[in-house]
Amino acid sequence: MIIVLKANQPKEKVDSFIKKLTGSYDVQVNTWVGAHSTVLGLLGDTTAVDEEYIAAQEVVDSVRRVQEPYKKANRKFHPEDTVITLPGGQKIGGGTLALIAGPCSVESEEQICLVAESVKKSGASFLRGGAFKPRTSPYAFQGMKAEGLELLSKAKERTGLPIVTEIMSAEHLPLFDDVDVIQVGARNMQNFELLKRLGKLDKPILLKRGLANTIEELLMSAEYIMAEGNEQVLLCERGIRTYETMTRNTLDISAVPVIKRLSHLPVIVDPSHASGINWLIEPLAIAAAAVGADGLIIEVHNDPSHALCDGAQSITPDQFDSLAKKVNTVFGTVHSL
Amino acid sequence: MIIVLKANQPKEKVDSFIKKLTGSYDVQVNTWVGAHSTVLGLLGDTTAVDEEYIAAQEVVDSVRRVQEPYKKANRKFHPEDTVITLPGGQKIGGGTLALIAGPCSVESEEQICLVAESVKKSGASFLRGGAFKPRTSPYAFQGMKAEGLELLSKAKERTGLPIVTEIMSAEHLPLFDDVDVIQVGARNMQNFELLKRLGKLDKPILLKRGLANTIEELLMSAEYIMAEGNEQVLLCERGIRTYETMTRNTLDISAVPVIKRLSHLPVIVDPSHASGINWLIEPLAIAAAAVGADGLIIEVHNDPSHALCDGAQSITPDQFDSLAKKVNTVFGTVHSL
Amino acid sequence: MIIVLKANQPKEKVDSFIKKLTGSYDVQVNTWVGAHSTVLGLLGDTTAVDEEYIAAQEVVDSVRRVQEPYKKANRKFHPEDTVITLPGGQKIGGGTLALIAGPCSVESEEQICLVAESVKKSGASFLRGGAFKPRTSPYAFQGMKAEGLELLSKAKERTGLPIVTEIMSAEHLPLFDDVDVIQVGARNMQNFELLKRLGKLDKPILLKRGLANTIEELLMSAEYIMAEGNEQVLLCERGIRTYETMTRNTLDISAVPVIKRLSHLPVIVDPSHASGINWLIEPLAIAAAAVGADGLIIEVHNDPSHALCDGAQSITPDQFDSLAKKVNTVFGTVHSL
Amino acid sequence: MIIVLKANQPKEKVDSFIKKLTGSYDVQVNTWVGAHSTVLGLLGDTTAVDEEYIAAQEVVDSVRRVQEPYKKANRKFHPEDTVITLPGGQKIGGGTLALIAGPCSVESEEQICLVAESVKKSGASFLRGGAFKPRTSPYAFQGMKAEGLELLSKAKERTGLPIVTEIMSAEHLPLFDDVDVIQVGARNMQNFELLKRLGKLDKPILLKRGLANTIEELLMSAEYIMAEGNEQVLLCERGIRTYETMTRNTLDISAVPVIKRLSHLPVIVDPSHASGINWLIEPLAIAAAAVGADGLIIEVHNDPSHALCDGAQSITPDQFDSLAKKVNTVFGTVHSL
Repeated sequence: MIIVLKANQPKEKVDSFIKKLTGSYDVQVNTWVGAHSTVLGLLGDTTAVDEEYIAAQEVVDSVRRVQEPYKKANRKFHPEDTVITLPGGQKIGGGTLALIAGPCSVESEEQICLVAESVKKSGASFLRGGAFKPRTSPYAFQGMKAEGLELLSKAKERTGLPIVTEIMSAEHLPLFDDVDVIQVGARNMQNFELLKRLGKLDKPILLKRGLANTIEELLMSAEYIMAEGNEQVLLCERGIRTYETMTRNTLDISAVPVIKRLSHLPVIVDPSHASGINWLIEPLAIAAAAVGADGLIIEVHNDPSHALCDGAQSITPDQFDSLAKKVNTVFGTVHSL
Repeated sequence: MIIVLKANQPKEKVDSFIKKLTGSYDVQVNTWVGAHSTVLGLLGDTTAVDEEYIAAQEVVDSVRRVQEPYKKANRKFHPEDTVITLPGGQKIGGGTLALIAGPCSVESEEQICLVAESVKKSGASFLRGGAFKPRTSPYAFQGMKAEGLELLSKAKERTGLPIVTEIMSAEHLPLFDDVDVIQVGARNMQNFELLKRLGKLDKPILLKRGLANTIEELLMSAEYIMAEGNEQVLLCERGIRTYETMTRNTLDISAVPVIKRLSHLPVIVDPSHASGINWLIEPLAIAAAAVGADGLIIEVHNDPSHALCDGAQSITPDQFDSLAKKVNTVFGTVHSL
Repeated sequence: MIIVLKANQPKEKVDSFIKKLTGSYDVQVNTWVGAHSTVLGLLGDTTAVDEEYIAAQEVVDSVRRVQEPYKKANRKFHPEDTVITLPGGQKIGGGTLALIAGPCSVESEEQICLVAESVKKSGASFLRGGAFKPRTSPYAFQGMKAEGLELLSKAKERTGLPIVTEIMSAEHLPLFDDVDVIQVGARNMQNFELLKRLGKLDKPILLKRGLANTIEELLMSAEYIMAEGNEQVLLCERGIRTYETMTRNTLDISAVPVIKRLSHLPVIVDPSHASGINWLIEPLAIAAAAVGADGLIIEVHNDPSHALCDGAQSITPDQFDSLAKKVNTVFGTVHSL
Repeated sequence: MIIVLKANQPKEKVDSFIKKLTGSYDVQVNTWVGAHSTVLGLLGDTTAVDEEYIAAQEVVDSVRRVQEPYKKANRKFHPEDTVITLPGGQKIGGGTLALIAGPCSVESEEQICLVAESVKKSGASFLRGGAFKPRTSPYAFQGMKAEGLELLSKAKERTGLPIVTEIMSAEHLPLFDDVDVIQVGARNMQNFELLKRLGKLDKPILLKRGLANTIEELLMSAEYIMAEGNEQVLLCERGIRTYETMTRNTLDISAVPVIKRLSHLPVIVDPSHASGINWLIEPLAIAAAAVGADGLIIEVHNDPSHALCDGAQSITPDQFDSLAKKVNTVFGTVHSL
């Protein structure tokens, strides 16, 4: 951490500030005195050093981190890729492309089983499906909740596909026993109390990037989960909010290689939410496979125009089948380059 | 709601779509057939009509709302300003400027009482203070939690100032009995499960706009609380995230008059989080008072450079005293224009 | 165009407004009277109808376009892809991937010729190189200007590669005779006077999307050029400005399939400016090839750490050679799917 | 400037880099060697040091400026406020609030004279009016051009109000002899060739902030004008582009106090373009006056619903009269605090 002090600070104040630093944190401080300004360099573990606290000090002009503020998610301290293996043997990370597919919402036993069987045939190794649905409007369909989770279990029984589904409150955790991968939605990416609770589980967490959160904030949210002991975190890029109105969100495709360089955690891309438009899903899925994503999470509905939510961004099982072939081909081509 | 159909749709499909609309919702449908396209107009209560569901229909090209999707927060159905009155008689809304002040974090009994007494003398009618602190890093100070709430109660006992403090999880609600106004932070603006729980209370909720949420989404989140029965909602503009790096966030000052036109709920401005810089707080507070805000929430710390969080955006009690005089003068001048 | 009128407008006002519409534009107006509001539908060529003018009318509540405001750039009126063919036979569009490569700035005859020969060997069919450089600071290197253009001509003579270079003012046009493709930079995307002048040339124009311009605005700027007669426009996605700080810009990869659906013009991707980081260029180039881009424009410098500008986002000739092989493989794979 | 070097760089490379720095720029380099990294501090005039060039060096990890990259616009080197005085005695800056008012477009002699006389009576000291209009669509009204400038001159003759009008190309400069303040629109804020030409004039330039440009970039564009010799620059905040759709742009009210702290140049606010909605102009104008703006530029049209452009954001002369009284009262109140 580099701290630039304000010009012309009295020596006592600077000394007392340095004392405070070495007293409060496990760091060493190097001082470099220039003609116009003094710069301090902090060595040691600066992850616990609060930038805002430092910035508020009377003698401080500005603060810059040199080291990343995350540790457990940091590739520097964990150079090999994390590979997440489910009890059923399904893997995410480590050179494969995991396909997670299913409807936005679970709507009926028939629907979820039909879609599950179909996406399995097309190569999906995980079933997604919403039981608790975060909706902008309180008047919109909020999901089948507990009943939806039961139907997911039936589909899992039938197909063997592990379940990926979203949690909206830690109070619902008792209902999630049969869920294999718990998803944290974009709107809850900084619901820190929820993250801490999920950090105490021994189950993979799929953490979606918030609407307008930076990559570093996403990694810090992963760190919340990991700091509690659960290191099975999947990071998901699902589009960010920009001024562009042609698409629902803007897929930040660079986030995939950037996150993979900074962190050892697997990266999943959600082209359905990123675009919000069904004909865009295939090209974005291909782009994600080409750029090194470890998995794709895609909304598939047997009858998109009757979907109870997000129909506009769902594709049919046939379209998914075609997409799956294409992304696998592209993923294979890129990996063999 | 105006629905533009795709060109050249077969009559049966259009008819069947219209039947579906009138069967599913309490609406009437008017059809206008043009040479190249057909437009449907929905009359009645369209708040329950799901735009995404409509947009996903095969025959539909695009959908536009004419009516706002919120009802209880809508000024159209509640033309007079909502005025919130606390048991102790303090008011927010209705032509006064409420000052809510206090430290980012409660740190000790001495600190919170000192600040409370001081801001009271300067004209604050509410005490703010964080006990549960949402921090980007799991390694940063997370607040004094339950103990912090107890210290806030002591300061309230001493000064009579009602308490405004943030909740981060519905599971903490039992600790909030003595809290007068419960704050929902920007990161939880779309934590819908939390909003629903707060909607069952009989206590004002101060709802902060999310980092990158639209004004309409803020109103929809208020609607979540109100739909459960709690109509005492205070909306708070605290700056939005943009590409500008000179300030922590960008205060959207237009949000104040825009929200007040769309809704009857009081609007509070938070210049501390909006700017992140202490010398900017006063001018932004004055701007907010000039533009019709019903209140200001401001971080005041007896010793900002030792604040355990957000010191850089705290002002001293003396600075608050001066600010309070100025904003009241400007508020008075503008109201008498 | 759909115009929603305000509620309860007197019939005379509405009639007079409709008369004004049919009198001013070559359109027919259909009126649909609902219980609470009246909706007008305009048929005919609405590209000349000014939305802002309509929105300002006393009786109008809101206006929505159904038809796109661009004509010449619109795929609806020109369903086949535009293929641009240079005098030397080089093509952009029509199922090939054009590689445009070269240094950020022309620095010397030796440098530009060395890079030109090298990128040609690797498969580039166009040479890029900046002579006039738009720099944020007036104190930064502004390019070799006229001399730079002369050196580009020498490199063209030596290699046969057509020149792509940026123009910053119409007054420099006389110097651009030997330039094959004139580039309009992001900062000048809405320099309409420049666009009009370029519209009078018989030479391809590579138009870069502005920092914060929508896809529709990009197409409207292309329309400025095309409306003057020059239909050889190449659209370039080069990243947009967001709140993310990890990359210089955020590559909007969705823009490629979206633009190709809306328009018949070729789409080029610039991964160098989109990322600003050399190790990100290859993955982004691969993503662009995978998603259907018609070309890539890439900064290549023989010695990036001595480049007079943008060195951090330049790759070496060797890296370009490797990249070229990979993007061609991926492009081939995707096109054969 | 602080340069953090990559870890474990060989001493020769570091030494050679330092030599390059002192050889290329008029700076001294201080080296601070830590256990894990080496930090260099540059002293002297670093405005000419190109950050990107430095960042591209093999041994460099990151670069941070400590000094601002602008000099002439920098308050540090010019502590007193710049006051701009027109030949007719009108002033901008120095404790007054200049009102600049007039129609979006000049439409006829009658119109411009009517509006000019009216806004003069209400206290405006400058007449604005567009002759060359930057429009997103080539099919929209582009302004009366040379004829519009002539009509502005007539209105000036009649009222004595100096003219503020936009230039879109340096080639039009010969027509601008009678123009008193030349405006550079948001879309041309980084049209550096135009800025350089305006820098050679002896006439105030009103420079509008670009749609998505930072405050620092605005100051750097001012620096382009000033570096050529023209120090009469007025900076204009006119709203930035965000994801919010309720307003045309988002007025960045913080920009006023931030710019005034960083620079000595006067700051003008344009509430008309910032909001795009006529009823929002008055509250935003009041906010701007309250926060210390040196002037306001406001669109006033005798008949907004017949305005040839931007009618939706124009107010009537009567509304302007009322607004002028209010902003002067608020400005007076705030200045006397």
